[in-house]
Formats: sequence, structure tokens, C-alpha cells
Amino acid sequence: MKARVVVTLKSGILDPQGKAIEGALKSLGIAGVASVRQGKVFDIEVETDDRSRAQDVLREAAEKLLANTVIENFSVEVLG
Amino acid sequence: MKARVVVTLKSGILDPQGKAIEGALKSLGIAGVASVRQGKVFDIEVETDDRSRAQDVLREAAEKLLANTVIENFSVEVLG
Repeated sequence: MKARVVVTLKSGILDPQGKAIEGALKSLGIAGVASVRQGKVFDIEVETDDRSRAQDVLREAAEKLLANTVIENFSVEVLG
Repeated sequence: MKARVVVTLKSGILDPQGKAIEGALKSLGIAGVASVRQGKVFDIEVETDDRSRAQDVLREAAEKLLANTVIENFSVEVLG
């Protein structure tokens, strides 16, 4: 079963990498971008056909390893 | 207008970081994960109300800066 975990910085947490990308886009002449926040995405293949079991495994993986829940939010999406 | 650009490695491109995460999940006792591929996500605020204009700006940003199109795919999703 394929799934995607998206990890993003909580609002209020500074994102210097995102700021650098904003600056670089302006330098490249790409106008109209107000703000950029960078996060991580994990495309994960889970060995189960049970959707809610897959959700549980991925939630545990995100809480224990993929995300730092002090400064990051995560979302789990089972694609089937 | 809010949008999300997701950048993932093309299939066939090695992902040592993903492999390391697979190993770490096993070490943590989280079973049932067959494979992990890591990518990047950019949450971008675009200064326009025109959906197709936003798409164009983001596609250009992805091609010129956010993705290395030799080894990476990207997708643009305008959230409105």
C-alpha cells in the first residue's frame, strides 16, 4: 500500500531555507512569489492491505523518526 | 493564492537517505515498511488570484530552481 507523509514546519518557526529560496527566485527574475516554506515528503510503501493499519504504522513512524513534533507538523495520506 | 510544489526523485535514481530511514525504522521496531523515498515539499504563497498564472509561475520556479529535472520529478498543486 502506497502512502505519503508530509512534514512541514509549524507556523512561527523560522525557515531560513525558505527565505533563501525566496531571494533566489527574485534574483532569477521570477516575480510574484510572496513566501516559501520548505518541508519534507516521504513516499512510503507499507506491507499491508489494511488502510487503518497502514495509518497507524505511518503515524508511529512520523512521531518517532520522520518529524520533530516540537517544531514540525505532519500529515499522513494513504494512497491505496 | 496558496500552492504546493512536491519534488521527488525519479524512479531508478538511488535514494541513500530513504534507505537509511528504512534501516532506522527497523531499528526502532516499526515493522511493515517496505520502502521509503524522500522528497521535498515547498509551500508557496503566490501574489495572484489567477490559477493558471500561479501554475505558470510555479512551473517556472520548479524548472529553474526547486527541482533538478535530470534526476527529479515535480508536481504543482494550486490550493486556492
